[in-house]
Amino acid sequence: MSHVDFRTSPARYKHWRLSVDGPVATLTLDVDEQAGLQPGYELKLNSYDLGVDIELYDATQRLRFEHPGVKAVVVTSGKDKIFCAGANIRMLAAAAHSWKVNFCKFTNETRNGIEDATENSGQVYLAALNGTASGGGYELALACDRILLVDDRSSVVSLPELPLLGVLPGTGGLTRVTDKRHVRRDLADYFATRAEGVGGRKAEQWKLVDEVVPRAKWEEIVSERARAAAQAAPRLPGGPGVELTALDKTRAGDAIGYEHVSAALDRDRGVAEITVLGPDADAPASMDEARALGDAFWPLAMTRELDDLILDLRTNEPEIGAWVVRTRGSAERVLAHDALLLANAGPDWLANEIVLYLKRTLKRLDVTSRSLIALVEPGSCFAGSLLELALAADRSFMLAGVFEDVDPGADPAALTIGAMNLGPLPMGNGLTRLQTRFFGDPDALAAAGKRAAEPLAAEDAAALGLVTFAPDDLDWDDEVRLALEERGSFSPDALTGLEANYRFAGPETMETKIFGRLTAWQNWIFYRPNASGPGGALRAYGTGQRPDFDRKRV
Amino acid sequence: MSHVDFRTSPARYKHWRLSVDGPVATLTLDVDEQAGLQPGYELKLNSYDLGVDIELYDATQRLRFEHPGVKAVVVTSGKDKIFCAGANIRMLAAAAHSWKVNFCKFTNETRNGIEDATENSGQVYLAALNGTASGGGYELALACDRILLVDDRSSVVSLPELPLLGVLPGTGGLTRVTDKRHVRRDLADYFATRAEGVGGRKAEQWKLVDEVVPRAKWEEIVSERARAAAQAAPRLPGGPGVELTALDKTRAGDAIGYEHVSAALDRDRGVAEITVLGPDADAPASMDEARALGDAFWPLAMTRELDDLILDLRTNEPEIGAWVVRTRGSAERVLAHDALLLANAGPDWLANEIVLYLKRTLKRLDVTSRSLIALVEPGSCFAGSLLELALAADRSFMLAGVFEDVDPGADPAALTIGAMNLGPLPMGNGLTRLQTRFFGDPDALAAAGKRAAEPLAAEDAAALGLVTFAPDDLDWDDEVRLALEERGSFSPDALTGLEANYRFAGPETMETKIFGRLTAWQNWIFYRPNASGPGGALRAYGTGQRPDFDRKRV
Repeated sequence: MSHVDFRTSPARYKHWRLSVDGPVATLTLDVDEQAGLQPGYELKLNSYDLGVDIELYDATQRLRFEHPGVKAVVVTSGKDKIFCAGANIRMLAAAAHSWKVNFCKFTNETRNGIEDATENSGQVYLAALNGTASGGGYELALACDRILLVDDRSSVVSLPELPLLGVLPGTGGLTRVTDKRHVRRDLADYFATRAEGVGGRKAEQWKLVDEVVPRAKWEEIVSERARAAAQAAPRLPGGPGVELTALDKTRAGDAIGYEHVSAALDRDRGVAEITVLGPDADAPASMDEARALGDAFWPLAMTRELDDLILDLRTNEPEIGAWVVRTRGSAERVLAHDALLLANAGPDWLANEIVLYLKRTLKRLDVTSRSLIALVEPGSCFAGSLLELALAADRSFMLAGVFEDVDPGADPAALTIGAMNLGPLPMGNGLTRLQTRFFGDPDALAAAGKRAAEPLAAEDAAALGLVTFAPDDLDWDDEVRLALEERGSFSPDALTGLEANYRFAGPETMETKIFGRLTAWQNWIFYRPNASGPGGALRAYGTGQRPDFDRKRV
Repeated sequence: MSHVDFRTSPARYKHWRLSVDGPVATLTLDVDEQAGLQPGYELKLNSYDLGVDIELYDATQRLRFEHPGVKAVVVTSGKDKIFCAGANIRMLAAAAHSWKVNFCKFTNETRNGIEDATENSGQVYLAALNGTASGGGYELALACDRILLVDDRSSVVSLPELPLLGVLPGTGGLTRVTDKRHVRRDLADYFATRAEGVGGRKAEQWKLVDEVVPRAKWEEIVSERARAAAQAAPRLPGGPGVELTALDKTRAGDAIGYEHVSAALDRDRGVAEITVLGPDADAPASMDEARALGDAFWPLAMTRELDDLILDLRTNEPEIGAWVVRTRGSAERVLAHDALLLANAGPDWLANEIVLYLKRTLKRLDVTSRSLIALVEPGSCFAGSLLELALAADRSFMLAGVFEDVDPGADPAALTIGAMNLGPLPMGNGLTRLQTRFFGDPDALAAAGKRAAEPLAAEDAAALGLVTFAPDDLDWDDEVRLALEERGSFSPDALTGLEANYRFAGPETMETKIFGRLTAWQNWIFYRPNASGPGGALRAYGTGQRPDFDRKRV
């Protein structure tokens, strides 16, 4: 199979239509059955595969950046009687375990992004279910702020995964039903075992939807609710939008390159060496100047490239188990760009959007099942927003001094805590990466915070607990090499579990519950013969055969 | 294999010694290598299997009830140089998946019980590591309030599961290291990949232990710390203890019987019909009178029986996938017993212990991977503490009216909210079962709370949302039968995942993180070929062969 490419644009969409009418946009799902990403299945009943989801993600990003005037987004279907039947079962049944897991992860991230737009961008999503929404289709609706369901005696919402497929509604469904919509758990249990779903008044009474609307009044009410949502939405004023032009990317052999981000893949060692470049120019003097740069403005350009690289490596390179992250450039310029964004993120929609996008992209790292190792070397610019890359890492090494053989006259490596590290880029658990790092140790957190804005040498950074190890030139190569070799020798599954636990110290949120509790159970269930074995429910579905279950509970 | 029996007593211990010296007790682990619960492995290096853990659980219960004067418990080893090597690997490698999962669950519950004793009983646990504590051995120490490690240049603490076995430290280790002991996550990552562990000053600096103690001063310092802990512990005064006499239990064919609790197993349908009887006498007038009843005092006797039944069914009957719970007796008497306990749980150690024990036993239900169905019928006594059984259920049915053919003159079923439902019996998520049920719906919670102490008929209970369905006599049999048949037709794995998600709406705590995030990942890892396959790490361990990993990340 060729590499999955996450780059697309509305003109190339096969499955979605994006239309904008003043402050209201409409995203219409109208899946092309024959245009699945891979051969072997037809996308019937508006069911989706990764290709459909890639377009949805692209649309949500463009709505934020290209359509600052849009305050409400209606998600609906272009088919009659069906909103969306969820993830395509044939695709799931045939897919490798790692594909299923990554597909669900990306789907989850897009849905979290929809909630982020509603909550933090003042761009409110409404699900207009003009037909039945089942499984992942209903889970997409659950990510919206408001759910309208047509009342035509046949359209329902349902989570049929458990009764029909022997798996969970695993892209947020179980968590959002109780924790977001506050459906009582025994009703939620009943609902999730009832393949035929729930419609009409009962769906509203049980809080599964917000409103059921007679077919005759459908267009009118949907339009009214969208306009009212747009009116109430606190989206920052501004315009015109910033066009997200096609990412300039090269991918040849073992190298992936963009303007500010690159990766060299070492397949023998299972390592990707990622380098992020700081800005190659001083920060603009104002957001107006930044806006004039369009999507070439460094924080936006770098974040888009990093985002695409994460998705590419996760999907296309499952055997590259460790990502080594370096930065190169001027820490002052990084901090100046950060400062411009943060000074304006209140009033300026673009500054706000860029910070939110960076936040979402860093969150992708947190839920990526790869070992993340940061290397802080002379010439690097781990400061502010880019320091988050080191704080997201499972382990970090910082060179004490310089590489004597390479550049004895270089300035020693330094890292700098900036305002970006102290609040605007929380993880899914609601804490900053510094707070998570020093969870339960307020003194250490305060000590680090006091040194903000000061370039810290390796000895200081290590003493403050900001890096894991600070070897000198003599030990550096061996220590880093051993750490990577060792990582490559461990069970990839155990590392995934270890990292998924350690990265989220402290509180859990709906988001981390989805990625932790729900996803972990789903991964397990996906893997068990009762779902994926020759007689399992996923394979039996549609064959007329009853699945052959091992009845033992665990 | 014969049924695993959870009943034991100190005189029968093979692996632990319990000694009491005034306010300080010592639990000494001295495993009999040859006395494993099953054949096929030797319990070398103080490693444990379920049999060892059953004794530990028994000891922690007796310390609470039989030794009210004990305020500090020292957990140590009777072997030289080794505290405990954790769960026995040969046992794990040979065990069925469901066995591994249930074994870890029980181990986790005992460790949570140790923390509960420290926090709520004023019986503080100290781990005195007189030798190396690895894996589950260190995880046992993590459950203690304070960890002392001997400083002899060879004794270390370690979590070698990932590097040696390709699995997680899955009985709380990963969660407690960061969330309880506040070890920095990158150091925690390094620690969990370092099979040789960490000892001496570094273990203290990294917060892996509280204190390292020179060998020469070991006895003296341990004894000093224990005495100081006992002195500071807020254990309620009182004595003498209440002896936990041998449970009178019959287990023959498909019937399990105790005095107040019974279960009839229907193996064809995969259903256990559990009945809990209310008190057969009025509540004692005082805790002194209750104390005179010893362990025959109904709340204690019933809880012990229920506790044993849960453990029995979980371990010995994995194919019984649904537990149907009924009660029978006088609601007034249940509420009177509850009232006696709650009026005295402040000053009276025994009342306090019984409420805490009931809390822990109900928590076992919450993490039990069986479908729980409550049936509220005429003659039942779902009130206060016993109403929790219905609130713990995934679904409940309450008969509207009476069974006309059986007893047309009966009083219709009623249920009653009591003080026990409003605080003293929180779930692992820190909320009561009522709060969890009405999570995010304070009006519904308040409406139910207002009706406390009032016997509620089916129509009222259903309208308040306290039961799921309230069919009448005509529909009862069909509705209940269909629900159970349907449950029996679903994938047991998917049901396990569904229930594990729905039962814990709202906040997560360290405890629910252990049972949710950590356990779910561990179950998945246990199941993957990289751990349990023919070339997996669990099987390769000790053979000299390197495990054969599929390197794909997910």
